[in-house]
Amino acid sequence: MKRVGFLLKVKVDKLDEYKKHHENVWSEMLAALREAGWHNYSLFLHNNGQLFGYFETPHSLEQAQALMATQEVNTRWQEFMAPYFDANARPDEMFQELEEVFHLD
Amino acid sequence: MKRVGFLLKVKVDKLDEYKKHHENVWSEMLAALREAGWHNYSLFLHNNGQLFGYFETPHSLEQAQALMATQEVNTRWQEFMAPYFDANARPDEMFQELEEVFHLD
Repeated sequence: MKRVGFLLKVKVDKLDEYKKHHENVWSEMLAALREAGWHNYSLFLHNNGQLFGYFETPHSLEQAQALMATQEVNTRWQEFMAPYFDANARPDEMFQELEEVFHLD
Repeated sequence: MKRVGFLLKVKVDKLDEYKKHHENVWSEMLAALREAGWHNYSLFLHNNGQLFGYFETPHSLEQAQALMATQEVNTRWQEFMAPYFDANARPDEMFQELEEVFHLD
């Protein structure tokens, strides 16, 4: 299992809406993530819009994303989420991966 | 188990040294963290100095920190790490906790 950490930036004026949508992520989207090997996946949000993602996967971030990219539900979810982020690309194309510099089991 | 996410900022001109120290965290410090209920603890670093911490604990962040604060080795470690951070306080007094807005097991 590899532990992945990544950053994204949510628009400050859309934080409440973003949070609300994440209380009710489509069950089809959750199933697709599970099947693509996204485990123990959390998103953490700062009130300045900084979003931090953490998950565990048998794959790399690139592979885990490539597996999701084949899923039609992911295309729909990313298009749905695009207006909440500070760019025009799909959110899953803007992930900034971080380096894990310490781990304690 | 509660999942905790927090942010800190490392000085950009000290990233390499910071990383090096975290490859060899004192075993006494690791034992103190384990005993204080810091599990599956990772630190992720962006090359702009943004540091993200993730861990799982039966406690809150405040309680997990309070348990560490009683440990003499933690005082020594925080004093050792203080010069690597953008402030004068001890690093463990500058944690910015993030809100978990999504989780998939």
